[in-house]
Amino acid sequence: MTLLACWLNGQPIQCLSPLERGFAYGDGLFSTLRVEQAQVPLLDLHWQRLWIGCQRLQLNTDDFAQWQQDFLQFVAQFPQAMAKIIVTRGEGGRGYLPDPQQKTHCYFYAYPLNLHPVANQTGIKTDVLQGRLGINPTLAGLKHVNRLEQVLLRQELALTAYPEGIVLDYFGHVTEGVFSNMFIVRDGQLWTPRLELAGVAGIMREHLCQLAPQLGYAVTEATLGIDDIVNADEAFFCNSVYGIWPIRQIGQHSKADNPITQHLQQQLYYV
Amino acid sequence: MTLLACWLNGQPIQCLSPLERGFAYGDGLFSTLRVEQAQVPLLDLHWQRLWIGCQRLQLNTDDFAQWQQDFLQFVAQFPQAMAKIIVTRGEGGRGYLPDPQQKTHCYFYAYPLNLHPVANQTGIKTDVLQGRLGINPTLAGLKHVNRLEQVLLRQELALTAYPEGIVLDYFGHVTEGVFSNMFIVRDGQLWTPRLELAGVAGIMREHLCQLAPQLGYAVTEATLGIDDIVNADEAFFCNSVYGIWPIRQIGQHSKADNPITQHLQQQLYYV
Repeated sequence: MTLLACWLNGQPIQCLSPLERGFAYGDGLFSTLRVEQAQVPLLDLHWQRLWIGCQRLQLNTDDFAQWQQDFLQFVAQFPQAMAKIIVTRGEGGRGYLPDPQQKTHCYFYAYPLNLHPVANQTGIKTDVLQGRLGINPTLAGLKHVNRLEQVLLRQELALTAYPEGIVLDYFGHVTEGVFSNMFIVRDGQLWTPRLELAGVAGIMREHLCQLAPQLGYAVTEATLGIDDIVNADEAFFCNSVYGIWPIRQIGQHSKADNPITQHLQQQLYYV
Repeated sequence: MTLLACWLNGQPIQCLSPLERGFAYGDGLFSTLRVEQAQVPLLDLHWQRLWIGCQRLQLNTDDFAQWQQDFLQFVAQFPQAMAKIIVTRGEGGRGYLPDPQQKTHCYFYAYPLNLHPVANQTGIKTDVLQGRLGINPTLAGLKHVNRLEQVLLRQELALTAYPEGIVLDYFGHVTEGVFSNMFIVRDGQLWTPRLELAGVAGIMREHLCQLAPQLGYAVTEATLGIDDIVNADEAFFCNSVYGIWPIRQIGQHSKADNPITQHLQQQLYYV
């Protein structure tokens, strides 16, 4: 994919420092954002998640307001793009130990806006992948850049015919998709896997947790097994780039009508 | 720390591509090597571990022999240095999914040879750290670059007076140090934690597993608890940069003589 631009701390750059800790150790966080007509839906939720991530990873946020301002300028220059914000612990240090004087780095990336097939919005087939997520309460929920697990799962997914796959954790509990979160509908209520042990707390997941109750659907975070997904009235994947992909079939199990999923889709104004 | 040089695929470079997947996702492996008088002890074990890591992460190794040749040239130019070899899945791809045409990247880094205090060789004090390693059979043992856990543990260690700390996994089992492996001696035999769930399979650990039996000490990998470490006759940390650091004290518990540890230290010809 062609890179349209890369900025570091508000300035365009052509390349990265060899001392960048995001390269040496994956010492950072990121977010992926859809930019259309210079608008970024749910931008506040993206910044909120980055803020929380910086607290949990002890990344200095003195320049947080500046990053937010710089990003608005970036979006004005790249009004139709897939953007990434990457925040790292900067350069150098001695081995794993960071340099305490080192400023946090904030990168912006812009790629062409290359969206998934619209047909997926009607519904997709999926199944459980073999690869399992590790258990890590220290890092669970964070969209950090230590994403080797997702790289391997994405490669496994590419060997199937499915646009997304269901990923279990080490204990066999349903966690999420490879690059999406999951919800089920049962008896008019929504359920989504807890993310205290593994997974990424997605922006669309957060948005739906706020939106669904406003529409009359209670949302509960719970520990779910694959049986819960198979037996649910409705099920879907979600992320902030494509919105909602209803699940029509899991392996050999088909699902019937999904009015609540469709209602939620209609309420997502931008996808 | 001053960077003396950075090479990519056998050529000096000044900076990294913004598309480098090692930066985006930590999609790679590394090794840290001590270079003195252009000699690299245990170099074969480093390459062996990189090879195994490439197989487990499905990193293409067509150029493996070339990397080995290039590294000998690198070491001839930087004969007194701390070196790093970093192997990544190269650039680009679409999100987590790699570009199947993309060649694996092999980087060499040289830093000044900056060794730990020699006094540690006589023995150190240590204790159990609060942070716990996650459980991840898919990645356990590998020296991949997804090292956020180690960054956080290293920061926790810096708040103590200890040169190294004992790290437990999510289940409470002793795994390793922050940047070292561990062994205990009990009844004339060596024991070291199993690394199927967490931890890094270190070069010195591998070397000692081969060396110790030659010296008459059986070595067993086992699931160990902190009580096993406290009650052992002897205990030590090890890595390929500093060799062996005997543990004299864990919290309030002191250890007595350590003849087997000292015997092993004497047999490590280069540290």
